[in-house]
Amino acid sequence: MTTKTGPARPAAEERDAADPLRTLRDAFVHHEPEIYFDGNSLGRLPTATAGFLEHTVREGWGAGLVRSWDTWITWNRRLGDRLAAHVLGARPGEVVLSDGTSVNLYKLAAAALDARPRRRTILADADDFPTNRYLLQGLAEQRRLRLVPLRSDPVHGLDPDELRRAVDDDTALVVLSLVSYRSGALLDMAAVNEAARRAGALVLWDLSHAAGVVPVELASTGADLAVGATYKYLNGGPGSPAFLYVRGDLQQRLRQPVWGWYGQRDQFAMRELYEPAGDVDRFLVGTPPLLSLAALEPALDVIERTTIARLRAKSMRLTAYAAELAQEWLSPYGFRLASPDDPARRGSHLALAHPDAARISRALRVRQRVVCDFRPPDRLRIGLAPLYTRFTDVHDGLDRLRTLLESRGHEDLPAETPRVT
Amino acid sequence: MTTKTGPARPAAEERDAADPLRTLRDAFVHHEPEIYFDGNSLGRLPTATAGFLEHTVREGWGAGLVRSWDTWITWNRRLGDRLAAHVLGARPGEVVLSDGTSVNLYKLAAAALDARPRRRTILADADDFPTNRYLLQGLAEQRRLRLVPLRSDPVHGLDPDELRRAVDDDTALVVLSLVSYRSGALLDMAAVNEAARRAGALVLWDLSHAAGVVPVELASTGADLAVGATYKYLNGGPGSPAFLYVRGDLQQRLRQPVWGWYGQRDQFAMRELYEPAGDVDRFLVGTPPLLSLAALEPALDVIERTTIARLRAKSMRLTAYAAELAQEWLSPYGFRLASPDDPARRGSHLALAHPDAARISRALRVRQRVVCDFRPPDRLRIGLAPLYTRFTDVHDGLDRLRTLLESRGHEDLPAETPRVT
Repeated sequence: MTTKTGPARPAAEERDAADPLRTLRDAFVHHEPEIYFDGNSLGRLPTATAGFLEHTVREGWGAGLVRSWDTWITWNRRLGDRLAAHVLGARPGEVVLSDGTSVNLYKLAAAALDARPRRRTILADADDFPTNRYLLQGLAEQRRLRLVPLRSDPVHGLDPDELRRAVDDDTALVVLSLVSYRSGALLDMAAVNEAARRAGALVLWDLSHAAGVVPVELASTGADLAVGATYKYLNGGPGSPAFLYVRGDLQQRLRQPVWGWYGQRDQFAMRELYEPAGDVDRFLVGTPPLLSLAALEPALDVIERTTIARLRAKSMRLTAYAAELAQEWLSPYGFRLASPDDPARRGSHLALAHPDAARISRALRVRQRVVCDFRPPDRLRIGLAPLYTRFTDVHDGLDRLRTLLESRGHEDLPAETPRVT
Repeated sequence: MTTKTGPARPAAEERDAADPLRTLRDAFVHHEPEIYFDGNSLGRLPTATAGFLEHTVREGWGAGLVRSWDTWITWNRRLGDRLAAHVLGARPGEVVLSDGTSVNLYKLAAAALDARPRRRTILADADDFPTNRYLLQGLAEQRRLRLVPLRSDPVHGLDPDELRRAVDDDTALVVLSLVSYRSGALLDMAAVNEAARRAGALVLWDLSHAAGVVPVELASTGADLAVGATYKYLNGGPGSPAFLYVRGDLQQRLRQPVWGWYGQRDQFAMRELYEPAGDVDRFLVGTPPLLSLAALEPALDVIERTTIARLRAKSMRLTAYAAELAQEWLSPYGFRLASPDDPARRGSHLALAHPDAARISRALRVRQRVVCDFRPPDRLRIGLAPLYTRFTDVHDGLDRLRTLLESRGHEDLPAETPRVT
C-alpha cells in the first residue's frame, strides 16, 4: 500500500490543511488505511448513528412500543422538510421520505402520465440508471405509450438541444437524472424544466447522485417532480428510505396509483372510501421501515453543519484534483477520463475508463485497500464525497492505483462482479 | 395498578408454571409492571436485536461498507426461505421480503388481474383492513373493474357460503385476510382456496394478523398469493419489510407492474431491456431498507426455538382464558366479546366492545399501565402474543381493567385517538 510519501503529497496535505470542511471528516467512522471512493454508492457511517439507532431501538421500540408511533409517524414529513430546506431547495411540505427510489419513481411517473392523458410519449435518457429505464419500459407497455430514449453522450451526458428537439405537444413526461450515475455529467435543471414547461410536459428528476453534493434548486427552477436515494451522499445507511418531491401547486392535481392508507386524507378514521390527502402525504403508501428511516436523522445532522454551497466548492476541487492526478499518473497506463472535463459540468464522482477496469477494480480493493466501484463495460467510478474525503485520500488512492498498474498487480486476479448501486 | 393478588391469581400462576413456552418470554425486553396487549400491532423487542443491529451497523455498514451488499443482497431471499419453512408452510423460493405490505398487495393484485384479463370482478371482504380496501379501490378504478365487497359479520367474519355464492367465472381475484384485524375471526384457507380454484379465480391472502400465531399452510392448501407484515407477531420491529408469497408454478406466469432492477433477470448485467427474473425475485423492486430487514434475523431466531403448532396451542389457551375472565369481570360493566367464541375460529387477539372503548383504552394505558389498542367505533383489541404473554399477564391486565371500570377512572379522560397498524 501507499507510502504516504512522494513529491506530490505535501501539496495534498496543504490542500487538506486549507480545507474549511476538514473537521467534518471526524463525524464519520473510518478504517484506515483503507481509502473509500464509493460514497456515491453507499455513504459512510456517521459516528452518531449507532448510538441514535440503539436509542431508537431500546427506548422507542423496546420501552415505548406502539406508543412511539405517535411521534414516528411524523418522521417522514419532518425529515422531508429538513431535506427540502437544506439539500433540495424546496419548500416545506414538498418533500417526504417514502419507500425506495424505484417505487417513488413509479408512483410519480404514473401520476404524471395520468395528468397528461392525451399525450402519448415519455422521454428519458437512454443511458440512465437501469432501474429508471426498466420502470419506464413497464409504464409505457402497460399504458401503450411511446418511450423515446434521448441519446446522450456517455461522457458528457444529454445535450439540452437533443431534449429541445424531442419534446413536443405529445410529450407527457421527461425523466432524467440530474447527475449521471456513470459519467457524473451534470444537467442544467433550469434549462430542462424550461424546455419541458414550454411544451407542456412534466419533468421527473432522479436526484440520487446529486443530493448532498450539488446545489439542487427545485423551487426556484420550477421543478415539477423528483425522487432520490438517501444512502449515497446523504449517508442514511444501506437502503434508507428515498425522498420524493412534488411541487406544492401540483400536489392536488396529481394522484398516484398505489392507494395505501398513509395516503388517505384522514388515515385513522378508516373510512370506507379512499380519498387522497390534500398534501404531499397523498404520495405515501404504508408504514415506513422506521429503523432505516431513523438512521437519516444523525446523517442530516452532519450535513446541516455546513451548506451545500460549501460542499459543492470542495467537491469541485476534489474532482479537479483527481482528474489532474489521473491524467498525470494513470493515462500512461491506458486510463482516460470518462467524465466531463469541467468540474462545473459534473457531480462528485469521476468515471475512469480502462479496458481492464473490472479486474483493476477488484485488485485495487483486495491488494491496495482502495474501494471504488466498477460499472460495465469499462469504468471505474471514483466517488469523492466532500463531507469526509481528503485531498490526501485522493492522492494516496490514486497513487495506490498507479502502484498497482506499475506492478501489474491486477493481472492474475479474476474480474470484478458489478455490485449494487 | 394491580395488587397481583385475588382469588383467581393462583390459577393463572399455575397455568404459567405448566406453560412449555414460558422461558421464551426471556427472549424479549419487558418493562414491568407494564402489561402489553398490543403485540398484534407492534411486536416486542427481542433481547438479541439491539446487539445484532449494532453489529450490522458497525461491522456491516461502518467497516464493510459497500462490500457488505455481496451478502446483504441475499437476505431478502434467505429470510424469506426461513419464513416459508417455519411460519408459512411454503416451499423454498416461494417467499421473499420486499417493500411494505401495501406495496406488495398492490404488486401481487395487479399481477393477478393481468393474469385474468377477461374477468372483470375483484371480491374482497367489506370489513378488511382499510389499506387493503383502498388499494383494491384504486386498482378497480384504474382498470375499470368491479370491486365487490363480500359482506362479513363484524364478529364472526366472512361466511364461506357468501364467497361460494359470489365467486364465478367473472371473478379475477379474491382478496382476504386470514385473520381479521378487528375481530380476530379466522378463515378456512383451504376452503377459500378450493372455492376460488373451482371458479378459476386467484386468491391473495393478507396474513398480517396470522403469521406467527396460527398455522398457515400455503403449499398444502394450494394457495396462490399472499402478503403480510412482519412487525406484529413476528417481532421484526417498526415498519420491518413485509413478505410476499407466490406459489412456485405461478411465478413464471405472473408479472408485477413495478419493473425495478431487483426484479430483473440478471440484475447487474444492466441490460437495456427489462426481462423479469425467472423466479420469485421478479416480484422485487429496489434496494431493501437493510437495517429494518436485519432486525428480522434475531426475531426469527426466537420463533425458530419453538413451532407454530405450539404457539397456536398456547395462543388458544390465552384467548380462551381472557374471554373467560372478560365474561366474568367485564361484562357487568357493559363489555361484550366481539370475536368468535370458539378459540379455533379466531387468531391471537380478542376484540372487546364497549360504547366508551376510546376513553377506556386511553385510561387503561395512562392510569393502569396496560397497553392495548382501540379500533373505531367501539373496540378494544387485546393482543395475546404467545411468545411472551403470560397467563398472569392476562389475569393482571384484565384485573386492572376491572379496577379501572370499578373506580370509573376513565370518565374524566379524553378519548383515545386510533393509532398506526
